[in-house]
Amino acid sequence: MSAGKLTGAVVAEHNSKDSCWIIVHGKAYDVTEFLPEHPGGQKIILKYAGKDATEEFEPIHPPDTLDKFLDPSKHLGAVDMATVEQEEKAFDPEEAERQERISRMPHLEACYNLLDFEVVARQVMKKTAWAYYSSGADDEITMRENHAAFHKIWFRPRILVDVEHIDMTTTMLGTKCSIPFYVTATALGKLGHPEGEVVLTKAAHEHNVVQMIPTLASCSLDEIIDAKQGDQVQWLQLYVNKDREITRKIVEHAEERGCKGLFITVDAPQLGRREKDMRSKFSDPGSNVQSGGDDIDRTQGAARAISSFIDPGLSWKDIPWFKSITRMPIVLKGVQCVEDVLRAVEAGCDGVVLSNHGGRQLETARSGIEVLAEVMPALRERGWENRIEVYVDGGVRRATDILKALCLGARGIGIGRPFLYAMSAYGLDGVNRAMQLLKDEMEMNMRLIGAPTVADLSPSLLDTRGLLGGHSGVVPSDTLGLSAYDPLQVPRFNEKPKL
Amino acid sequence: MSAGKLTGAVVAEHNSKDSCWIIVHGKAYDVTEFLPEHPGGQKIILKYAGKDATEEFEPIHPPDTLDKFLDPSKHLGAVDMATVEQEEKAFDPEEAERQERISRMPHLEACYNLLDFEVVARQVMKKTAWAYYSSGADDEITMRENHAAFHKIWFRPRILVDVEHIDMTTTMLGTKCSIPFYVTATALGKLGHPEGEVVLTKAAHEHNVVQMIPTLASCSLDEIIDAKQGDQVQWLQLYVNKDREITRKIVEHAEERGCKGLFITVDAPQLGRREKDMRSKFSDPGSNVQSGGDDIDRTQGAARAISSFIDPGLSWKDIPWFKSITRMPIVLKGVQCVEDVLRAVEAGCDGVVLSNHGGRQLETARSGIEVLAEVMPALRERGWENRIEVYVDGGVRRATDILKALCLGARGIGIGRPFLYAMSAYGLDGVNRAMQLLKDEMEMNMRLIGAPTVADLSPSLLDTRGLLGGHSGVVPSDTLGLSAYDPLQVPRFNEKPKL
Amino acid sequence: MSAGKLTGAVVAEHNSKDSCWIIVHGKAYDVTEFLPEHPGGQKIILKYAGKDATEEFEPIHPPDTLDKFLDPSKHLGAVDMATVEQEEKAFDPEEAERQERISRMPHLEACYNLLDFEVVARQVMKKTAWAYYSSGADDEITMRENHAAFHKIWFRPRILVDVEHIDMTTTMLGTKCSIPFYVTATALGKLGHPEGEVVLTKAAHEHNVVQMIPTLASCSLDEIIDAKQGDQVQWLQLYVNKDREITRKIVEHAEERGCKGLFITVDAPQLGRREKDMRSKFSDPGSNVQSGGDDIDRTQGAARAISSFIDPGLSWKDIPWFKSITRMPIVLKGVQCVEDVLRAVEAGCDGVVLSNHGGRQLETARSGIEVLAEVMPALRERGWENRIEVYVDGGVRRATDILKALCLGARGIGIGRPFLYAMSAYGLDGVNRAMQLLKDEMEMNMRLIGAPTVADLSPSLLDTRGLLGGHSGVVPSDTLGLSAYDPLQVPRFNEKPKL
Amino acid sequence: MSAGKLTGAVVAEHNSKDSCWIIVHGKAYDVTEFLPEHPGGQKIILKYAGKDATEEFEPIHPPDTLDKFLDPSKHLGAVDMATVEQEEKAFDPEEAERQERISRMPHLEACYNLLDFEVVARQVMKKTAWAYYSSGADDEITMRENHAAFHKIWFRPRILVDVEHIDMTTTMLGTKCSIPFYVTATALGKLGHPEGEVVLTKAAHEHNVVQMIPTLASCSLDEIIDAKQGDQVQWLQLYVNKDREITRKIVEHAEERGCKGLFITVDAPQLGRREKDMRSKFSDPGSNVQSGGDDIDRTQGAARAISSFIDPGLSWKDIPWFKSITRMPIVLKGVQCVEDVLRAVEAGCDGVVLSNHGGRQLETARSGIEVLAEVMPALRERGWENRIEVYVDGGVRRATDILKALCLGARGIGIGRPFLYAMSAYGLDGVNRAMQLLKDEMEMNMRLIGAPTVADLSPSLLDTRGLLGGHSGVVPSDTLGLSAYDPLQVPRFNEKPKL
Repeated sequence: MSAGKLTGAVVAEHNSKDSCWIIVHGKAYDVTEFLPEHPGGQKIILKYAGKDATEEFEPIHPPDTLDKFLDPSKHLGAVDMATVEQEEKAFDPEEAERQERISRMPHLEACYNLLDFEVVARQVMKKTAWAYYSSGADDEITMRENHAAFHKIWFRPRILVDVEHIDMTTTMLGTKCSIPFYVTATALGKLGHPEGEVVLTKAAHEHNVVQMIPTLASCSLDEIIDAKQGDQVQWLQLYVNKDREITRKIVEHAEERGCKGLFITVDAPQLGRREKDMRSKFSDPGSNVQSGGDDIDRTQGAARAISSFIDPGLSWKDIPWFKSITRMPIVLKGVQCVEDVLRAVEAGCDGVVLSNHGGRQLETARSGIEVLAEVMPALRERGWENRIEVYVDGGVRRATDILKALCLGARGIGIGRPFLYAMSAYGLDGVNRAMQLLKDEMEMNMRLIGAPTVADLSPSLLDTRGLLGGHSGVVPSDTLGLSAYDPLQVPRFNEKPKL
Repeated sequence: MSAGKLTGAVVAEHNSKDSCWIIVHGKAYDVTEFLPEHPGGQKIILKYAGKDATEEFEPIHPPDTLDKFLDPSKHLGAVDMATVEQEEKAFDPEEAERQERISRMPHLEACYNLLDFEVVARQVMKKTAWAYYSSGADDEITMRENHAAFHKIWFRPRILVDVEHIDMTTTMLGTKCSIPFYVTATALGKLGHPEGEVVLTKAAHEHNVVQMIPTLASCSLDEIIDAKQGDQVQWLQLYVNKDREITRKIVEHAEERGCKGLFITVDAPQLGRREKDMRSKFSDPGSNVQSGGDDIDRTQGAARAISSFIDPGLSWKDIPWFKSITRMPIVLKGVQCVEDVLRAVEAGCDGVVLSNHGGRQLETARSGIEVLAEVMPALRERGWENRIEVYVDGGVRRATDILKALCLGARGIGIGRPFLYAMSAYGLDGVNRAMQLLKDEMEMNMRLIGAPTVADLSPSLLDTRGLLGGHSGVVPSDTLGLSAYDPLQVPRFNEKPKL
Repeated sequence: MSAGKLTGAVVAEHNSKDSCWIIVHGKAYDVTEFLPEHPGGQKIILKYAGKDATEEFEPIHPPDTLDKFLDPSKHLGAVDMATVEQEEKAFDPEEAERQERISRMPHLEACYNLLDFEVVARQVMKKTAWAYYSSGADDEITMRENHAAFHKIWFRPRILVDVEHIDMTTTMLGTKCSIPFYVTATALGKLGHPEGEVVLTKAAHEHNVVQMIPTLASCSLDEIIDAKQGDQVQWLQLYVNKDREITRKIVEHAEERGCKGLFITVDAPQLGRREKDMRSKFSDPGSNVQSGGDDIDRTQGAARAISSFIDPGLSWKDIPWFKSITRMPIVLKGVQCVEDVLRAVEAGCDGVVLSNHGGRQLETARSGIEVLAEVMPALRERGWENRIEVYVDGGVRRATDILKALCLGARGIGIGRPFLYAMSAYGLDGVNRAMQLLKDEMEMNMRLIGAPTVADLSPSLLDTRGLLGGHSGVVPSDTLGLSAYDPLQVPRFNEKPKL
Repeated sequence: MSAGKLTGAVVAEHNSKDSCWIIVHGKAYDVTEFLPEHPGGQKIILKYAGKDATEEFEPIHPPDTLDKFLDPSKHLGAVDMATVEQEEKAFDPEEAERQERISRMPHLEACYNLLDFEVVARQVMKKTAWAYYSSGADDEITMRENHAAFHKIWFRPRILVDVEHIDMTTTMLGTKCSIPFYVTATALGKLGHPEGEVVLTKAAHEHNVVQMIPTLASCSLDEIIDAKQGDQVQWLQLYVNKDREITRKIVEHAEERGCKGLFITVDAPQLGRREKDMRSKFSDPGSNVQSGGDDIDRTQGAARAISSFIDPGLSWKDIPWFKSITRMPIVLKGVQCVEDVLRAVEAGCDGVVLSNHGGRQLETARSGIEVLAEVMPALRERGWENRIEVYVDGGVRRATDILKALCLGARGIGIGRPFLYAMSAYGLDGVNRAMQLLKDEMEMNMRLIGAPTVADLSPSLLDTRGLLGGHSGVVPSDTLGLSAYDPLQVPRFNEKPKL
């Protein structure tokens, strides 16, 4: 036994609701009093009561979580890990099959487009991680619409334009970017890759694009900022806490550390129900399915718990306060109709992101690209098109998607899941290749459209009649998209017992 | 032999058209004279001539049926059941497979939405019961359209609204409800669950929603009313009998026992042809398929027989009479175009249900939600929107469906089959979970739409352009709906004889 | 050897182009000189040179064909069939499988609708017969559209109409009919049933509907007329011959024998290419596929040959001549746009059939029901709606289809293939059941629409917005229709040789 | 060893970047200095360094390539092929299966339409050749749309027109043609057939249609011109070289040799990314997939390399120069919106081809037929419809497609891939049959439409409402087209190792 360290046996005694200790990264913590406050419910903690919880803890919590949320008095100090009983993991045939698939992964160069990464990721990611990233609200209609909506818009290219030199640079919130997309905020990066969001930071630097840092990152805010290089630019995505002082601290800290934009999420007063994600957790071999009833209801439990962080009372009245605490440009992320864009202008916001949160929140919410087609004419009619920067995210998989948004009037386009998939399957190389593919596509397509610079992109290059029909039209079948999509599952009957 | 009881042998002698006795719940009845009047045809009775018919009789007839429709002189008294020969049931491989599936049913908590119950019910219900509940008219286009139509309508949510407190209560025909749906009337509840409609009564109480009692229930009207608790509210659904005195008695009795609304079905002067249902009966192992020709034609037989109960002559002229016999509010159930809604207002009706009877009557009849979009502007134009309460039913599976109807102007939404499926698969627990899931979805979606109360729901929150195209559009593919749908079958060739 | 009869051996000597005799129904014919004139090409005759051709001849030619088209000098007299060598038929596994399927055919009562007959017929008909009946032009898009177009039209039913008594009778060209459909002309009835078109004659009598007699019947015109009973009414469908005297004789003969309407086919100056039909003949085991090149080109051969009968020069100038040779009402069958309907009125025609010939002629020709929606408003605008009777055919499978056409303004609806399928699968009983099913559906649906008589059917009962989108919409998927449809095949590679 | 010839051993010594010799058609060449300039990248050449490259070289390069592009000093002279070591080819199971399929090919007469050739070609062509011909840009949505767009247009045929004599001849750029289609330019004909483009030259002569000669042919320009017979007419398709003198020489040479039209490609400033093509090369058994990273990036490599030939700086300013160097009519190939057609008129061009390059360049570019519907009314409005000839290509598979384009106002229709497929599967016989099938279809359909001459074709014969909805509609499912289409593939995992 190492001097001054706790033994595994001592920790193991505290294995109940009445006294619950857990080990994380070699240190013990008394979380007994914290149990009822845990946003993810107490059951998941109790599963590790008296044990080492590091593997489960790691991807879900930034490393500074325990320091921030648990009183120092509950930090019990180092544990002699040699004395901690190693639980033998049951053989998991699913995991074995996954490892076998990983051994046969396609070469990175066999990925020719962003959808290819999704196909590979689906096969090589852990099932629960895949479910978290890939799931959408309800029937995932909105999530699929996000990509499909781009196929309602077709090009009217111009010929005989000198397109020898293509310049795809642009400026977003004052930052010069090599290409008009940015890495949008997505949660829990360590589910896909052990290094988490800093992988995206490195790729963003490599390709000279902006990264938006998520509130719910696996890495801490500082870790992500520490990873930036040179004059690389980052923005902060913000879920607003009921306790405004916590929010104030985060915003001020981000600004001090150089963040150049504040993107306030306004489409998630409550986090959406994502049944693919819920179902993947349900059949987790670790959960006792048959006796599920003795727990709190999972359905509302998760939703309500997370609501305790995010303030559903956030409203237009809060905007002046944000303007008072930061000099960063303020952008509302998740605006979904023209009325609210106009109001954002009047409220003095610097930008909006037209987004339905990747189809993860409200089902049958319109896609950002469709809302953009509604918004820009209204802004131009009022002469307001330069009073606010309009961004779009959701469903972007091709440079043609980006070009359509730019032609309609977007300043920049956020891309999230595709980079997560590339990262999960191939790490930094994957993200770099994904970004390079977009650049190659972009250069070629600007040539083919007859628009050598971003400024040449205009609505006259598009045929948008396909947007007029509302939502009872269909778009051309999208072979790769259909291959990549993981359809929702219905409840599974138990296995037939083997004879 | 028990004193004064009939023996099985005596009953068994009356096994023909000329003298036909049957046993139900331990009592014998002489139904010889009743044979030609039986709405379901005489063949099904003759199958049990001289035998115990309880199992077949039970789900189709309320317990007071024989008292009501058979003269007391035909009630022959108790039978000594020990003397009744037990027919040995042939081994039914389909039933054995069903029992096996029941043994492997998914845990109730694995049902995350109303479609999940449908998937489970399809596997665990008796084939004929499933066919009766799930079938629709002709090609079942209308039935499928009912759900699909909701996907033509998309949301235009508002952000930065304080949605901390969500109030989803509303008032229907003067009754305060916890959420704006009601349990609509559906026939033959005991096909799905041995206790029948009272299961729904209990769940309606638990969740504080109104139950509409069906005329064609398996339980008697009194049984269903007896099952209500506290100040629980029920309505009466009415098929109007050619003999108006019978109708008058039912209405007056329902009112005396506290029913608070009279919903007169106006879309079923004749019951529809439902081929899935017909085909499921055809291949009933008990029927002699090959010699089917010696019977009356099943097709028109069933349709015409049931017409003998329901008055196809019911017309607008009858409305004043209904107003004269009851003080309950009068609601026309099954209205299908704006012209008839306006006429209902003029006739002094208190409400209408826009409905195509769950797609079970007229094929290619429009969905209630589509008719609602036609009706409300016409009412508002005349300033009549408060002179009548407009309800909708058909195809509702998600809280977003409910919200779309409310935004358009519906007062409340009827839900039928989903609760039957939940009841058939999981009993009362299933119905309770189904209702709770709707409440959870409702609360979340009101937050995401930015409408904290029912009064905040308005047409400006919707994009209804998808409804303009008539019916040659399509809606996004609905993975779960497609999984749950049981497609129509074509005639089956006989099995190849085994060698 | 019977006295005065030819022996098989003698006939067998004439087995070449230079001298070609064939036996039909026990008589020998010298067809040497006729070979080049045979509309179906000479190859098929030469296959039977010197042999008994009855089985091949029978379904394709009315019994009076040889009398009509072959000079009496070529009629060689009776053959002693006992001396004719019986060719042993090679074992045909496809035919054996068909016979096996026939042995397991579903009971007639398991057919609940017209599509069910199609499903059964597809399995039990000879492949070439099925291909001839079921095929359409090119990609069969038009053929499928014909049925699908009805699903673009939805009902707006009326409630609280007294529908106790339903009267579905109507009058067509002065004839009272029990229901507003007629049996339209279809060729080669003996392909499906050994008795041919007279089966339809009998069913038409049974159900009191009109039969239209085809020019290209397997039975002779007189046989079909002889089969009529009582005051049964028949019409004549006419392909106009280049030799107008032949046409004159047919028309005059039909009128003398009581035909009450002359339907001149105007949509087939050349018979369409039907690739399913062509392909089915190609793989006929009797044809030598590998040496196909030594024959005339099949493709243009068939098309051009049949053109030799039908006059592609037929034009509006001929109409007065038709009016001069008959007092039967003259109806143009195959009109496809409003301009030509107006011209037909001006030309003094009594009626038009809006039809694309069952989708067998021009690909992407519009369906009759769509053209009807274009035609009737134009007629009403001019006050001409009573100057001409407008009929529709193509794709009708349900009484709701009939009702939609009647609501739009059609006088009657022609039904062809469904009765052929019912006849081919189940003979007269099949056709009778098919017609009865339509009547049952019709009665029920008139109740459900709230229209007790044909006169009550009007455009206000329909929602026809689905027709406005041209042809880039889709209609609800039609489960049974998809089951019944036999998709086109691509060229088949030869079988792998067995080891 | 033959006198004066190089030995294989000597050549084999030059097998590296530093000294790279290759053998083509029995002669050795020193390509060391040419390596960096090779448009296809140096890797493919180095694979054959020191070896015989004829098989790989042949289909990609016209025979005069080495003479044109390699300095005479690098032509090393004849090699004694007997001394060249024959590389034993590894057994290729894919190739063996292909040969087996070829042995079972359907008889040519079993191809009844142009799609049938595509189905056969897909099975019998080499995988990489098939991929090159059949691939399109990105998700191949545009490529599929090209054919589908024709199904949005339906006919409004006229009846009772005298159609005995059909005249389908027309005039294109002053040349009388037997039918209004021409063989459009397609690259690399020897991939499909060892004789290459001259096969098409022969068929074009046989059927009296114009052939457009491609810049990127496998045969040399002179070979193709040498193959023409009689007064056969050819046009020249031109990719404009950055070095205008090279372009001038080609144009002048073509004119001298009798070409009658100059079609300047304007839709390909950079060649498109075709992922099916790229993927087919990737899994080429000859490439070392696992170590792919040591090469230049394939993706941008190919695209950029080919850009070095074609001038992305080509612009409207160049048109006067073209007019100065040739008297051939000048036609812009690849115009995609009405604005550019009007500009072409103003620039004095003689024609335009509305085309998206067979869906191989810009994804979601509109089909030629759709652009035609936009263009012709604008030309007629200005009275310019006779100032320019308008051609269309892309997706044509049926004579009805041709007729639709002619009705809208096209002068002629280009057909490319279908003839390549017919040639690849069946050689000259295949192309001849393909053209004859189109003629047969054309004659029949002009009869059925009621238009005996090309001049009778007008917009009033069409219903084009299906084009109005933009691109969110769908067209009828196209059974053969779906059978023929080779869907895109996602990355393949490596094979599981065999035990």
